[in-house]
Amino acid sequence: MTNFSKCNVSFEGRVELHDKLSLTGAEVSFNVLPAGTSVPFVHAHKENEEIYIVLEGNGTAVIDNQSILLTKGDCLRISPSAKRQFFAGKESAITYICIQVKENSLTQFTMTDGIVE
Amino acid sequence: MTNFSKCNVSFEGRVELHDKLSLTGAEVSFNVLPAGTSVPFVHAHKENEEIYIVLEGNGTAVIDNQSILLTKGDCLRISPSAKRQFFAGKESAITYICIQVKENSLTQFTMTDGIVE
Repeated sequence: MTNFSKCNVSFEGRVELHDKLSLTGAEVSFNVLPAGTSVPFVHAHKENEEIYIVLEGNGTAVIDNQSILLTKGDCLRISPSAKRQFFAGKESAITYICIQVKENSLTQFTMTDGIVE
Repeated sequence: MTNFSKCNVSFEGRVELHDKLSLTGAEVSFNVLPAGTSVPFVHAHKENEEIYIVLEGNGTAVIDNQSILLTKGDCLRISPSAKRQFFAGKESAITYICIQVKENSLTQFTMTDGIVE
């Protein structure tokens, strides 16, 4: 494992970073749903928390049968067992990042994990 | 802990999601460095892997004294012990997401962690 790895994404389609960057603590994907489309299934997770970040467009997340309107800048945490499905707007594509991490895995961060030289 | 949480960010300044969303597996921050500026220190981490995603603009990452030019769509994984510092371009701001996760914490993801209903 080298000290860093790098790639470039276009934000124009599905890209998964785990294998491209040799990630060990997360999977990060970029996703684009064209207007009027959706992820074609409802899903949940066994142990991973998901974090969604909407980069462009708008749409809807349905989480445990609750509909949440989404627009640029919206960020969601979804617990592993919650049943979720994502929809683009009827007349708008939606572009979003999805981060998968193991629930309760973070033990410290920023000021407690950082070392300033 | 509810099944989900939500907030909105403007992508126009520093925002940290951990406390806003009650994250348990990551810290996620949004960052903007104005043209000609930098994070004012070099830093490393004790146990967290960092993942950077450049949303807009350009700049430079210096990782263990190696300079890496950055532009929109560039993604980096940085090992905990690597010494890093981020700079905006001389004539361009840079907007980026930083994800902190515990190194080696992810045990399964996507097809192995997902449950399709």
